[in-house]
Amino acid sequence: MNFASDNAYAAHPAVMAALNDANSGAMMGYGADPVTARAQEAMREVLEAPEAVVRFVSTGTAANALVCAQLSPPYGRIYCHDDAHIETSECAAPEFFSHGAKLVTLPGTGGKLAPETLARAIHVGAGVGLNGGLNAMVSITNATEWGTVYTAAEVAALAAVAQGAGLPLHMDGARFSNAVASLGCSAADLTWRAGVDALCFGGTKNGAMAAEAVVFFDPAHAEGFDYRRKQAGHVFSKNRYLAAQMLALATDGLWLDLAGRANAHAQVLGEAVQAGGGQLLQPVQSNAVFATIRAETHARARAAGAQYYLWPDKSAEGLDPVPLRLVCAWDTPEADVAALAAILRG
Amino acid sequence: MNFASDNAYAAHPAVMAALNDANSGAMMGYGADPVTARAQEAMREVLEAPEAVVRFVSTGTAANALVCAQLSPPYGRIYCHDDAHIETSECAAPEFFSHGAKLVTLPGTGGKLAPETLARAIHVGAGVGLNGGLNAMVSITNATEWGTVYTAAEVAALAAVAQGAGLPLHMDGARFSNAVASLGCSAADLTWRAGVDALCFGGTKNGAMAAEAVVFFDPAHAEGFDYRRKQAGHVFSKNRYLAAQMLALATDGLWLDLAGRANAHAQVLGEAVQAGGGQLLQPVQSNAVFATIRAETHARARAAGAQYYLWPDKSAEGLDPVPLRLVCAWDTPEADVAALAAILRG
Amino acid sequence: MNFASDNAYAAHPAVMAALNDANSGAMMGYGADPVTARAQEAMREVLEAPEAVVRFVSTGTAANALVCAQLSPPYGRIYCHDDAHIETSECAAPEFFSHGAKLVTLPGTGGKLAPETLARAIHVGAGVGLNGGLNAMVSITNATEWGTVYTAAEVAALAAVAQGAGLPLHMDGARFSNAVASLGCSAADLTWRAGVDALCFGGTKNGAMAAEAVVFFDPAHAEGFDYRRKQAGHVFSKNRYLAAQMLALATDGLWLDLAGRANAHAQVLGEAVQAGGGQLLQPVQSNAVFATIRAETHARARAAGAQYYLWPDKSAEGLDPVPLRLVCAWDTPEADVAALAAILRG
Amino acid sequence: MNFASDNAYAAHPAVMAALNDANSGAMMGYGADPVTARAQEAMREVLEAPEAVVRFVSTGTAANALVCAQLSPPYGRIYCHDDAHIETSECAAPEFFSHGAKLVTLPGTGGKLAPETLARAIHVGAGVGLNGGLNAMVSITNATEWGTVYTAAEVAALAAVAQGAGLPLHMDGARFSNAVASLGCSAADLTWRAGVDALCFGGTKNGAMAAEAVVFFDPAHAEGFDYRRKQAGHVFSKNRYLAAQMLALATDGLWLDLAGRANAHAQVLGEAVQAGGGQLLQPVQSNAVFATIRAETHARARAAGAQYYLWPDKSAEGLDPVPLRLVCAWDTPEADVAALAAILRG
Repeated sequence: MNFASDNAYAAHPAVMAALNDANSGAMMGYGADPVTARAQEAMREVLEAPEAVVRFVSTGTAANALVCAQLSPPYGRIYCHDDAHIETSECAAPEFFSHGAKLVTLPGTGGKLAPETLARAIHVGAGVGLNGGLNAMVSITNATEWGTVYTAAEVAALAAVAQGAGLPLHMDGARFSNAVASLGCSAADLTWRAGVDALCFGGTKNGAMAAEAVVFFDPAHAEGFDYRRKQAGHVFSKNRYLAAQMLALATDGLWLDLAGRANAHAQVLGEAVQAGGGQLLQPVQSNAVFATIRAETHARARAAGAQYYLWPDKSAEGLDPVPLRLVCAWDTPEADVAALAAILRG
Repeated sequence: MNFASDNAYAAHPAVMAALNDANSGAMMGYGADPVTARAQEAMREVLEAPEAVVRFVSTGTAANALVCAQLSPPYGRIYCHDDAHIETSECAAPEFFSHGAKLVTLPGTGGKLAPETLARAIHVGAGVGLNGGLNAMVSITNATEWGTVYTAAEVAALAAVAQGAGLPLHMDGARFSNAVASLGCSAADLTWRAGVDALCFGGTKNGAMAAEAVVFFDPAHAEGFDYRRKQAGHVFSKNRYLAAQMLALATDGLWLDLAGRANAHAQVLGEAVQAGGGQLLQPVQSNAVFATIRAETHARARAAGAQYYLWPDKSAEGLDPVPLRLVCAWDTPEADVAALAAILRG
Repeated sequence: MNFASDNAYAAHPAVMAALNDANSGAMMGYGADPVTARAQEAMREVLEAPEAVVRFVSTGTAANALVCAQLSPPYGRIYCHDDAHIETSECAAPEFFSHGAKLVTLPGTGGKLAPETLARAIHVGAGVGLNGGLNAMVSITNATEWGTVYTAAEVAALAAVAQGAGLPLHMDGARFSNAVASLGCSAADLTWRAGVDALCFGGTKNGAMAAEAVVFFDPAHAEGFDYRRKQAGHVFSKNRYLAAQMLALATDGLWLDLAGRANAHAQVLGEAVQAGGGQLLQPVQSNAVFATIRAETHARARAAGAQYYLWPDKSAEGLDPVPLRLVCAWDTPEADVAALAAILRG
Repeated sequence: MNFASDNAYAAHPAVMAALNDANSGAMMGYGADPVTARAQEAMREVLEAPEAVVRFVSTGTAANALVCAQLSPPYGRIYCHDDAHIETSECAAPEFFSHGAKLVTLPGTGGKLAPETLARAIHVGAGVGLNGGLNAMVSITNATEWGTVYTAAEVAALAAVAQGAGLPLHMDGARFSNAVASLGCSAADLTWRAGVDALCFGGTKNGAMAAEAVVFFDPAHAEGFDYRRKQAGHVFSKNRYLAAQMLALATDGLWLDLAGRANAHAQVLGEAVQAGGGQLLQPVQSNAVFATIRAETHARARAAGAQYYLWPDKSAEGLDPVPLRLVCAWDTPEADVAALAAILRG
C-alpha cells in the first residue's frame, strides 16, 4: 500500500504501447522525428494554443529550472511560495541553471499565493536596487504542494499582478492534470487565457515513465531555449521516446482521465480521515490528502503496510495526532485505497 | 537507409521487455527501487568492479558534463582531443556544469591522444599559473569520434601520464561497447585496470532508448555526485525505467553482442569503400566508417536513399571525392548495409 | 550631515600615505611584491594567527561570496540570519559565485543567530536529502546588520554547533573592527579561538578606499582559492595598492582606533535618541543606531540636512514614529554628530 | 630594470592627486557621487560618445569577463584570437561569468584576426546547431597581445563581418591607449566609428592603480549590466576612488601622453634589438617588443639585472637565440631603457 508519492507508481499501458509503436526503425535524432512532431501538435491541441512552443524533458526539476533560467537573468528575483517545489525540493536547481537567481519566497494559506502578498513583495523588490537584484518572474504551482488548486480566476488575479510589473508567470504543473481534472475547466482557461506565460505540464506523476512538457505560449519567450536545454544535457538524441509518452497522455484525454482517477482516490481517503475523527489540514482538491490522524490509527495503518510520509516533518513520528501526507496515483489499487480508508475510518 | 547516426536507431526488444517487466506496481522513487539495485550490480559485474559507484542518466552530454563538474573545479583545465565530443558536440555543457572549466584541446592522429602530446600539454599547463588555471583532469573517448579504438595498453599509457600529474582520467564511452567488441578485451581491462577513474558507459547508441551509466571506480570520486545530479535535473523519480534499460543491456552480454553487430556492419561498408576505389580516412575499428568516395558514387548512394553526413564539414557537398561518415547500429538492416555496400563497390 | 552609511566616508590619511609609499618604481605583480607580503604578515599579527592564509580583495561582496564558493559546493546549504548581508545586500553573489548554493535564512533577535536555532536548522537540513541539498557551512556577521555584536562566547557557542555537524564557520566582518572595539577583546578571541574558520576583515567601511582581507585560519580551507579569486576578476595586477591600505590599518592599531571613534559617535547618537524620547530598536553596540524617533524630530533632522535611511523599509516616510538607521564613520565630523544629537534630544 | 610587464609599474602623480582630491568628506556610495559623474563624462568626451554608458571596475579580467557575460548567453560562441588575453590569461573568467560560453579561438598573424578568417569561422559556427552553440559575439584586443595594433580600417573590416552576422564586437583595450598613441587617430575612430560595440578601456597598465572603464556605445547593450557587476562583487561602495583614477587619466590627454611615453621606450628597445643582430618577431607598434636575441646578449641583460619574460614559453631558457618579451611603461626609467638598449646593441 504505497501512498508515499505518485511517482512511486507505474506507466500506463497506453504509454508503453506508444513507446512500442515508436520503436521501429530509424528516425532522425534530436527531435527531428515524426513522433516528436505529433506529440508537440497534440500538446498544442490539448492547450488550444496553436502557436505555443512545446519541448519535452525527462524530469520536473529540469523543466522548472530551465524555465527559470530562461525567464530570469542571474541577478533576477523569482517570486514563489514558501513551500514551492522549486524552493524546497529541487536541490537549488533554479539557482544552478540560472546562475544565481534568488528565489524570494512568500507565505500563503494552503500553498497558494494571494495577489496582495505578491503585489506587496514585487513592490518591495522594485525598491531593493542593486543590493537585492532585479524583479524577474513569478512562479506558482498548480495543483499546489499542499494538494490545493488555483482556479482560473485566482491564476488570472496573480497574472494581473505579475503583468502589471512586467513579469512573466510560470506555472509548475507537475500535477497540472490533477488541477484541471479537479476544476473541470479547460487547460487553456487555467493557463494562457488566465495569463500564464510558461507551463511545465507534468507527465511523470500521471502515467508516464519520465516525461514533462515545457510550454511557452509566446514563442518569443522560447528564444534560445533549445540551446539551453542542450547545454544542460536535456536534449535526447532519441527524442521520440520522450515524445511518445506525452503523445499517449495527450491522446483521447488520457491525461485527464488518469488524473481524475487519482483525484477520486484522494477524495475517498479524505472522507475517511474525517469520518475517523482526523483533521484535514487542507481541503482535498487534487490527488493528495494532508491531514492529522490519531497515533493509534497511524500505528494500525503502518501495521497494515501503508507507506506514506509524515508531513511536513518526516521526523514527526511519536506525535499524537500525527501529521501526514497521502498521495494517490491513477493506478493506486482500489483495494489499497479501500483498505487504508477502512483503517482511517477506525 | 539511415547511416547518419547510431542514435537514429531503435531500442532492442530486450530493453522494451525490461521496461515492461519494471512497469508493475509501486516502487519507492529516486533510485530506491530493486530494479536500480539490480542494474547497478549488473554493471559492476560487467566491469568486474564490485566497489564501483554506478549511477544512471539519460543523455551522454549529462553523463560527461556531470563527470567533468565532479572532477574539475571551475578554474580547472580539462585535457582532451581537438575533436572530443565534450568539445565539439555538447554545447559547452562541461563549461556550464563545471562553472567555467577550460577544455584544453590537443591534436592527435585518428582522434586519439598520444601520451607525449598529453604529457607536454600537462607540463605546459602546470606552468601557466593563475592566468591559465589549474590542471584538473584528462578526458578521452573510446571508441573515438573518428571510429578508432584505444587499446588497453594505449589507455594505460595515457593514464600513466595523467596519474603522474595527479590527474584523474575520464573515459567518454558513448560507444564503449563498440570499443570492447572491437578489441575483444574485457571491460575491466579497458578501464580501471588501465587506470580509468570515471567511465560514461553508453547505452543509448547501443540499443537503449535513453540511458547511460556513470561509473566511478573509486567511490571517493563520487562524493556528492548524487546532489550534483539532482541539481542538474538528472535524477529520475521513477529511476527504475532508466535502470531497466541498462539492466537489459548488461544481461547475458547483450551490450557486447549488439555492439559487435554494429561493428560488423561497418566492416562491410569499409571494405566496400576500398573495393570501390574510395579511401578510408581512418581504419574501421568500431561502428563507423570515415572515408572519401567519388562524387558519382555519392550521387548514386543519395539517389538510393542513403542518409549520412558529409564529414567533418556538412557543407562539403560538391567536392570530388566527397568526405563522409557512415554510422551503423545493431539494427541497421542488413539489406541496407548490403545495398549501400553494393553502391560503394561501384 | 551624512549618516547614511560608513561607506560614504573617506580614506584615512595613513591609508593615503601608505598608498603613496607603495607608489614608487617597479614591483612584480599579482601579489608578488613586498607590500603585499608585509600586509599579510601584519594581518596575521593582528589576528595572532601565524599560519593563516591572508588575501586581499576590493569589495565586501567579493570577499563574502568567494568564501561561500570556497566552502560550499553548488548544492550546499549555507546557514545565515534572515537579515544577513549575503542574503539581502549582495545581489545573490553567493549563489552566483558558488553556482547555486542555497542560503537557508534563520530568524534571530537583534540580527544574531541563537545556537539552538542554528542547531535545529542544521538538524532539519541533515534530513532533506537530495531534494534540499547538503549542509555546507554557517555564516554570521559581526558586528551584525543591526549594529549588535556577538561576544566571543556567543561565537564559540555557534561554532560548537557548526563543528558538531562538520560545518565550517564564516564570519562576515565588514564591521569586524567595530565589533572588536566594542567588546574590548582580541581579534583572535573573537575569531579562530572561538572557532571561526574564515574571516572577511573589512577595511572599506573603516578608513580604507576599497580593501578587505579574506582570512582562512586553516590553510587547507584556502586550497585553490587564488584561482577562484583570479577567475572572478579579483586578483589585482598591482596588488600593492590593495595591500597598502590594509597594511596602514593594521599598523599601530589604527583599525581599532578608527572603529572606536565610529562606535563612540554612535553612542552619542543613541543616548540622544533616548533622551529625546525615541526608542532604540537595538542596543547600540557598534557604529550604528537603529531607532524610532518622532516624525517631528525626523522632520527637523531632515531640515538640518541630515542624511540617513529609514529602516528597514526605505519607504516608511510618513510614519510616526519613524524607524531609521544612523551609521557613523571614523571621520563623521564631531560637529555633525553633535548637531544631530541636539536635534534628537529635542 | 623591470621589463616584465607594464603592470609592474606605478601610478602617475596625477592619479594620486586625484585620489587625494576625492578623499574629502562624505559622498553617497555605489557611484552616486560627483567624482564618478565627472569621470564618466570625461570618458565620454575622450571617446566623443555622449550617449555611451561608462562603468568602472578594478581589473581587466573583470572588465572583459563582464562584457562577455553581458553580450553572450551561456550557450554562446565567442570568437577571438588564439592568443587573446581572455583565452590565455584570465583563468576562464569569461566562461565563469557567462556560465559556459565557448571561446572559439582563431589563428592570425601578429596576434590579429583577419576578416576572412573570422568570416569563415562565423560561417562554420552558424552551422553547428545545438551541438556547437550559438554565434554570440566577437572579441579583439587592441593593442594586441603581440604588441601590434589594429588600424581603424582593420577594426572596421572585422566589425563589418561581425555585424553581417548580427554579432556585437568587443574590444579588449587593456592597452587601448597605446594603440591610439601609436596610430595617431582618435579614440572614436578606433572604436564606435569603426563599429566597436563595447570597449574595455584600460587604466591599470597606463598610470592608474587599478581602474578600467567598461564602455557600451549603445545603451541597449548595457541593460542590467549594473546588476551583473554588483553580483560579481565589482561595484565599489566608495566608487569615487575608482572613478578618480580614470578621471585623472582622461584629463588633459594624460592617458595619451603616458601611452606615448611607453611606446617610445619600446621603439628604442626595438631598434636596439635590430642593431644588435636580434630579430623582431613582430613589428614594434605599441609598448612591447617581441624578439629573439642571442643567448650571450640575454645572459648579459640578466647579469645587468634586467627582468623580462621569455616568450611565449617561459621555460625557453637555454635556447640560442632566446625569444623574449620586453614591456615598457610610462615610468620605466629612461636610464633603464638606455642601459638595456646598450646591452641589446651589443
